[in-house]
Amino acid sequence: MTTDPMPVDQRLARGARTRRTITRHAVDVASMEGLNGLSLGRLATDLGLSKSGVATLFRTKEQLQLATVETAREAFLEAVVRPASDTPPGAARLRELTERWISYAEQPLFPGGCFWAANLPEFDSRTGPLRDALRRQHRSWLGLLADQVRHAADAGEIAGLDADLAAFQIDAVLTAANLAMRLGEPRAGEKVRRVIEGLLT
Amino acid sequence: MTTDPMPVDQRLARGARTRRTITRHAVDVASMEGLNGLSLGRLATDLGLSKSGVATLFRTKEQLQLATVETAREAFLEAVVRPASDTPPGAARLRELTERWISYAEQPLFPGGCFWAANLPEFDSRTGPLRDALRRQHRSWLGLLADQVRHAADAGEIAGLDADLAAFQIDAVLTAANLAMRLGEPRAGEKVRRVIEGLLT
Repeated sequence: MTTDPMPVDQRLARGARTRRTITRHAVDVASMEGLNGLSLGRLATDLGLSKSGVATLFRTKEQLQLATVETAREAFLEAVVRPASDTPPGAARLRELTERWISYAEQPLFPGGCFWAANLPEFDSRTGPLRDALRRQHRSWLGLLADQVRHAADAGEIAGLDADLAAFQIDAVLTAANLAMRLGEPRAGEKVRRVIEGLLT
Repeated sequence: MTTDPMPVDQRLARGARTRRTITRHAVDVASMEGLNGLSLGRLATDLGLSKSGVATLFRTKEQLQLATVETAREAFLEAVVRPASDTPPGAARLRELTERWISYAEQPLFPGGCFWAANLPEFDSRTGPLRDALRRQHRSWLGLLADQVRHAADAGEIAGLDADLAAFQIDAVLTAANLAMRLGEPRAGEKVRRVIEGLLT
């Protein structure tokens, strides 16, 4: 029941590719201007697509924002979390995660720096699925950090620490370093390393 | 050269009062939705004023935003910084500043929590007078914290510390606690106290 001569599977594959192109660009925009800076029309213009085509793929601004948040998570996992999983858990993996996180913010992977540092403050005071998704991702990251601290303490690599408190501190200085980098402060990465080493001794 | 029957000084005083009413409301809005959520029209509607009246007082959105940032700074100084200046400098004042900061974020003074935590991430990747103003205020806060650490170390209250690094850490955990409070995480204030006490021993 379609006039499009292309077979259904090819059309679906093309739709999925276009979706990826759009959400990947949306992550970059949202890292700079926040998820509220996104709109179906703006992304269509940026990418030379028709607004109706973008609207067909995402339907609402909120669906677009949620897809963007998920794309950011995938890119973060690939750049920071997965490569560190080759390193033994505990202090070594914590250092590896930290180094990869510093590169992620410093290079940076997204032009506006850390996606969650840019967007959590915008949504922390609102209720809804976007805040829930961002919070779930943030908690998962804190949990990963706490697991490494717990492992390091259990293995006797470091003195006993409150793992959740240590993860809170590590995440706090990473986020503060991301801000410092954006504001042009020098040596933010070095500050992070010194705090982490202080916690690990 | 005016048809307004009110004397000039009374009109100026009335203008100043209206300006304060507008910027104080604008701080609340910007703490929730960011400085970009502000517009002359929106504030006029919220406060039952004419848009042209608001436009006469602020001229541009950027002027309104800059006045809002300055009003937020004044309110912060009054709630957190000035009351702590009665406490002796060093460890005691650092603890007092921390307690007042926790109240400022927890009560909260602005409905969206810390004004700088809400707005620095939005402007950290842009150039312009707003980013400059927010950065200047942030640096001044970091400087105040570092001064207390330096004083505490000089007075032998605490072991020698890198004062700038300690200030970076303290500000980082305060900002992380503000986010945790907004996200409904329990005991964020208590986490801050434990980190500060760890730094002060």
